Amino acid sequence: MALQLLTTVGLLASSAAAAGHLFPDCQTGPLSNNVVCNTKASVTDRAKALVAALTIEEKITLTGSTSPGVHRLGLPSYEWWQEALHGVASSPGVTFNKQSGGNYSFATSFPQPILMGAAFNDDLIKAVATVISTEARAFNNANRSGLDYWTPNINPYRDPRWGRGQETPGEDTFHIKSYVKSLIEGLQGSDPNYLKVVATCKHFVGYDVENWSGNERYGFDAIISPQELSEYYMQPFQTCARDAKVASIMCSYNALNGVPTCADSYLLQDVLRDHWNWTDDGFYVTSDCDSIQNVFLPHNYTDTREEAVAFSLIAGTDLDCGAYYGTHLPAAYEQGLFNDTTIDQALVRLYSAQIRLGMFDPANNQAYRALTFGDVNTPDSQTLALRVAEEGIVLIKNDGTLPLQTKDRNMTIAVIGPWANATTTMQGNYAGVAPYLRSPYLAAKDLPGVNVLYAGSPGDPTTDGYPAAIKAAKAADVVIYADGANSAEEEDRNLIRWSGERQDIMTLLAGYGKPFILLQMGDQLDDTPFLHHENVSAILWAGFPGQSGGDAIMNIITGKTAPAGRMPVTQYPAHYVDDVPMTDMSLRPNATSGNPGRTYMWYNQSVVDFGFGLHYTHFTASFANDSDASSWDIQSLMQGCTEAYKDLCSFQSVGVSVRNEGSVKSDFVTLGFVAGEHGPTPYPIKQLVAYERLFAVEAGATAMAHLNLTLGSLARHDDMGNLVLYPGDYSLLVDVPTQATWNFTLTGKEATLEEWPQAPPRQ
Amino acid sequence: MALQLLTTVGLLASSAAAAGHLFPDCQTGPLSNNVVCNTKASVTDRAKALVAALTIEEKITLTGSTSPGVHRLGLPSYEWWQEALHGVASSPGVTFNKQSGGNYSFATSFPQPILMGAAFNDDLIKAVATVISTEARAFNNANRSGLDYWTPNINPYRDPRWGRGQETPGEDTFHIKSYVKSLIEGLQGSDPNYLKVVATCKHFVGYDVENWSGNERYGFDAIISPQELSEYYMQPFQTCARDAKVASIMCSYNALNGVPTCADSYLLQDVLRDHWNWTDDGFYVTSDCDSIQNVFLPHNYTDTREEAVAFSLIAGTDLDCGAYYGTHLPAAYEQGLFNDTTIDQALVRLYSAQIRLGMFDPANNQAYRALTFGDVNTPDSQTLALRVAEEGIVLIKNDGTLPLQTKDRNMTIAVIGPWANATTTMQGNYAGVAPYLRSPYLAAKDLPGVNVLYAGSPGDPTTDGYPAAIKAAKAADVVIYADGANSAEEEDRNLIRWSGERQDIMTLLAGYGKPFILLQMGDQLDDTPFLHHENVSAILWAGFPGQSGGDAIMNIITGKTAPAGRMPVTQYPAHYVDDVPMTDMSLRPNATSGNPGRTYMWYNQSVVDFGFGLHYTHFTASFANDSDASSWDIQSLMQGCTEAYKDLCSFQSVGVSVRNEGSVKSDFVTLGFVAGEHGPTPYPIKQLVAYERLFAVEAGATAMAHLNLTLGSLARHDDMGNLVLYPGDYSLLVDVPTQATWNFTLTGKEATLEEWPQAPPRQ
Repeated sequence: MALQLLTTVGLLASSAAAAGHLFPDCQTGPLSNNVVCNTKASVTDRAKALVAALTIEEKITLTGSTSPGVHRLGLPSYEWWQEALHGVASSPGVTFNKQSGGNYSFATSFPQPILMGAAFNDDLIKAVATVISTEARAFNNANRSGLDYWTPNINPYRDPRWGRGQETPGEDTFHIKSYVKSLIEGLQGSDPNYLKVVATCKHFVGYDVENWSGNERYGFDAIISPQELSEYYMQPFQTCARDAKVASIMCSYNALNGVPTCADSYLLQDVLRDHWNWTDDGFYVTSDCDSIQNVFLPHNYTDTREEAVAFSLIAGTDLDCGAYYGTHLPAAYEQGLFNDTTIDQALVRLYSAQIRLGMFDPANNQAYRALTFGDVNTPDSQTLALRVAEEGIVLIKNDGTLPLQTKDRNMTIAVIGPWANATTTMQGNYAGVAPYLRSPYLAAKDLPGVNVLYAGSPGDPTTDGYPAAIKAAKAADVVIYADGANSAEEEDRNLIRWSGERQDIMTLLAGYGKPFILLQMGDQLDDTPFLHHENVSAILWAGFPGQSGGDAIMNIITGKTAPAGRMPVTQYPAHYVDDVPMTDMSLRPNATSGNPGRTYMWYNQSVVDFGFGLHYTHFTASFANDSDASSWDIQSLMQGCTEAYKDLCSFQSVGVSVRNEGSVKSDFVTLGFVAGEHGPTPYPIKQLVAYERLFAVEAGATAMAHLNLTLGSLARHDDMGNLVLYPGDYSLLVDVPTQATWNFTLTGKEATLEEWPQAPPRQ
Repeated sequence: MALQLLTTVGLLASSAAAAGHLFPDCQTGPLSNNVVCNTKASVTDRAKALVAALTIEEKITLTGSTSPGVHRLGLPSYEWWQEALHGVASSPGVTFNKQSGGNYSFATSFPQPILMGAAFNDDLIKAVATVISTEARAFNNANRSGLDYWTPNINPYRDPRWGRGQETPGEDTFHIKSYVKSLIEGLQGSDPNYLKVVATCKHFVGYDVENWSGNERYGFDAIISPQELSEYYMQPFQTCARDAKVASIMCSYNALNGVPTCADSYLLQDVLRDHWNWTDDGFYVTSDCDSIQNVFLPHNYTDTREEAVAFSLIAGTDLDCGAYYGTHLPAAYEQGLFNDTTIDQALVRLYSAQIRLGMFDPANNQAYRALTFGDVNTPDSQTLALRVAEEGIVLIKNDGTLPLQTKDRNMTIAVIGPWANATTTMQGNYAGVAPYLRSPYLAAKDLPGVNVLYAGSPGDPTTDGYPAAIKAAKAADVVIYADGANSAEEEDRNLIRWSGERQDIMTLLAGYGKPFILLQMGDQLDDTPFLHHENVSAILWAGFPGQSGGDAIMNIITGKTAPAGRMPVTQYPAHYVDDVPMTDMSLRPNATSGNPGRTYMWYNQSVVDFGFGLHYTHFTASFANDSDASSWDIQSLMQGCTEAYKDLCSFQSVGVSVRNEGSVKSDFVTLGFVAGEHGPTPYPIKQLVAYERLFAVEAGATAMAHLNLTLGSLARHDDMGNLVLYPGDYSLLVDVPTQATWNFTLTGKEATLEEWPQAPPRQ
């Protein structure tokens, strides 16, 4: 009976992606006597036993993301490709019920990471990830998804043009590292016996160009120095692999310094597996989709298709998203370009992951197997989706118009603009089906005692000249204008400024003497035309706020919730896109190339700063204890450091007193940066080293934040990429703009915290 | 009764674009006693009389492209915006019958100009334009269109990335000038009393950037030297305005050297109206859609919206595509920024055009008013649409595989690729509803005795790895792979190379030992990977071939028609997009900026040359008379020149003997270029000065072409933009690559053929 069913699935899978996911029948199926079904055996032994039962032809058919399984062994088909960037998402392995409102017809849709990052609240991120993995397990239990999720995207948001920046928590690597560690804990769970799902940190490494001015990701060669590779591009992956023990890593489309990442054993073996000790059972590397093909073309890294697949497999790419391994490994095998040991190692890794997910174990021992649709989009999850949006929203400008006092005022609000009644646009990319999508307009309509005029897109100036928008603005007491920039995969932005047409309509609508609130959605655009425009009363940035986005926005606007989000990226001036090619990967300013520097660490001409965010009250921040020592000896610090990874050793926990000087209860994000003259020149302007979000600080009250500094907080990377603690002057800066500064020095001789593995000479 | 009907139309028009177009009732309507209805009065007097009857409020409402008319005067609503780039096209003023197959449900859909240009046959272009204007009149007679057509697009195709290059005949201005003169003759007709339709040469001037790397057309400032402005960018407009007497010119989105073109009296008055004497009754300038708004934002050329509309009206932009004039002229009038004389002049121009179109005259005197749907897509027009596609197709490579001998061979042909069964893609942009769309696949299926395997898009390598394409190619005797690049308005291309994925599948399919024909469609891509690839048998470029595109292609492939089209543009290497920013308008190479030069005149690293094209036979070309003089005195030439515009004076008609040395009857395009050391340095590589297409030259026969050179053929532009005949060495080169060279000299003193009006100092 079970076998009969497996046969059917296998047949289906040979012609299309598998719709459901059944596990092997370890009780009565052909594998029941194979060690893979022996729960007492080690994971490795179990996986090896399975692989030993396979022919070479079968092995090769199992290397692609849409695995047909092996019928004769009762090994079911399996789709390895699931997405869940901010909720279980539409993807080859996820099947939503198409019957609207039916069980499994939706999943909780959280804001995009760029807005979640703006909350600077890692506990919240873990809670979000826990909901996502719970819902993923529920979908899997209903045969509606697999258990391998190709999320998160953690390439740092280096350039404002990047089409996928919205998928990341922002531009700062300390921030991404803290965020992603919590996220992976939530996704992979804390069961000592079973992975909840497999998370995948992507895209390893140096990937953040989609298609800019003739440079497509499929063939782009990112030229990065060892110093900036180690200090910036690698940092989130180090946390994933070394500290968070993510079970999967995805190599990327681009080449790094001449070698396509999926064919680069320096990256996949020397750095990832050797240097970071990323060798637990079931840890595997997947390619990005068709990136093995790209090793051949357009990278032209190998002379033949067979070399492309063999080199990638040998380098350590265990799974191919696509059919390129399946198509070309047979000839590569015949040509002797790889041997059984190599493919066996890849398959052992892949099936070890399945074993760690419990796919070969009885269901009744596994708590995750009991999750059902009753665990999807629960009231608590709904509240969480609303809360994370509220916590992320950033108040960029306010002349006192906000919070709007709407109660008992019989106020008329015009809600105008292309995003005013946004639906799926609020989700951003890699989205699933949301249970509902609460637009700003819908949320405004539900405000008690408020009359709402809606005008949607301002109109086509060619055909009508905005009459509906003008009429609504003139008739209203307050104008909320919701607009912004969208971005997309496979396409970088050319423009980071508001179009002339939008500036025209916005300043026109702002000119009727009504308070005018710019609700800036999506990606960042240069707000210069509005920041100092006297008719623009307030600017809120709300990113892609997810299923309850409109409610979150209206809660902020009306003061039900006080805003405390901080900018997760630098807002650059419009001309920045003319100042530096996107393909210039350097972060440091360079007088020769004209690169003005990248991120708040190196660029000092921002329009709105990384870390900036206003409140409905005023906070002061100061050091709690001003009698701290002001000098440390490096050798003493090193002697006290006993962690395996020395960057993680504690340095100081610095108390910061945060006082709410105004009259509105509010959260406050305490940000700590290190600056100063130490280590290699040039020195960064400053660098984030710690943050803590304080909650609901009452008016007049003082709360205490703790900035936990490590030796890594103080260290810098030399030109070889080594992490070094240098003698010199240090400052700890609190808040943006800086409210408090603590100066101290390190003395003695420099000490290496981490030796960076050097790349072999490139071709 | 008539008045009743007009009322209804007027009401409809106030809320939406007019669906039909009724003419004023000059017999019994309110205007019947106005001089505008007096057919004996001069056009100017008639238009002035109409305008004199209007209030200022009414005048302002008539300045937009969707004119509401004036109800009290029985002046009907009118939509000025019609398109007909390569056939009557979907646009605000054109209403196709939505009932499929019904009268007026389609119009003949010719190839895009880029392919029509490749035919190098101006008589054919005039025939095409005559069909288009006939069909336009038929649509108008059925109240399905107006009579003002915003076509052609004649900005020279300066950069291969341009999103709208497909709309133009190519990169060479002599070619465009010859082409567009014939086109306008066909569109505007030869009736001495009435314009057939109003044609509109656009976009004046320096417009050829859509959106490249942060540079949007709406705010782009094209920096162009007087020399290159006059010698290149202005040339097609000079022909339109001065020689072809086009009735309308459209100013553009961009600024030229700091001034938005629609607000530039230097362009619209000094150059266009004064220098080119473009002052006939009814000649008017329209804005591009919303380009008046753009004068304010994003150009920031004026401080207020009112200045933007007033300055544009005063500069000479008579009609606003959009509502910006209508919205902001009232306040501008109140502010005294323009007076009645200015708006009256604009309206007199506009209504003079309507009068010249016969809109205020009795129908029974006008032959055009008798055209009906019986004149739409006639058998002759269908044949013409097929023929122009055949004449344009360029054979780029052929190892002898073509023409395919399909008769009595029981041959199996695989037709593979994204364009293999193309429908509307074959039309390109600015298209109408075609009567049918004959894809390459459909045309192949209709070949007698041929078995066709179709595989469409090669497949998604991620999900399947191209099994259908591979299966078809393996089973076929011959593989035809149809693929190419598309482009779009508002978007420039980033890439001019075949993607890695496409190179992979194409070389894979070419590797099965079958003849492999690359049918390259759409815009140019760098064919380097295939030009010298031994497995690629032939390359045909077929652009956007229109309603009978597939038939034209199969007629060429099977040899029913012999190919003789020539490249209308340079095919650039893929790296060209990295070599020069699109925003660098300079044509000449520049060692400082790194600009390698633009067009065949200045760039010598092309992949496929402008003017290149193979045949199924071999032609030799030589000068018919080698006893020509070899030296001329400039002053003597000038004395013999009596044309009002001296560049048009004849120099020599040079006979070229073209001999068909092979065994296939074929057309041959005779191309003549001038090169040599004369005039300002640097010297162009060469410059097209004449061409003639010879038809059906029999195998072994010799035909005579005549290259008619003018003084303009020899002259060059100095750094002020003046056109000057210089003493020096000249060569006339025939064919690409050059087959015959005639060297001669001009002696004496340089002589100015044309003094170029200088721009006033810019802000």
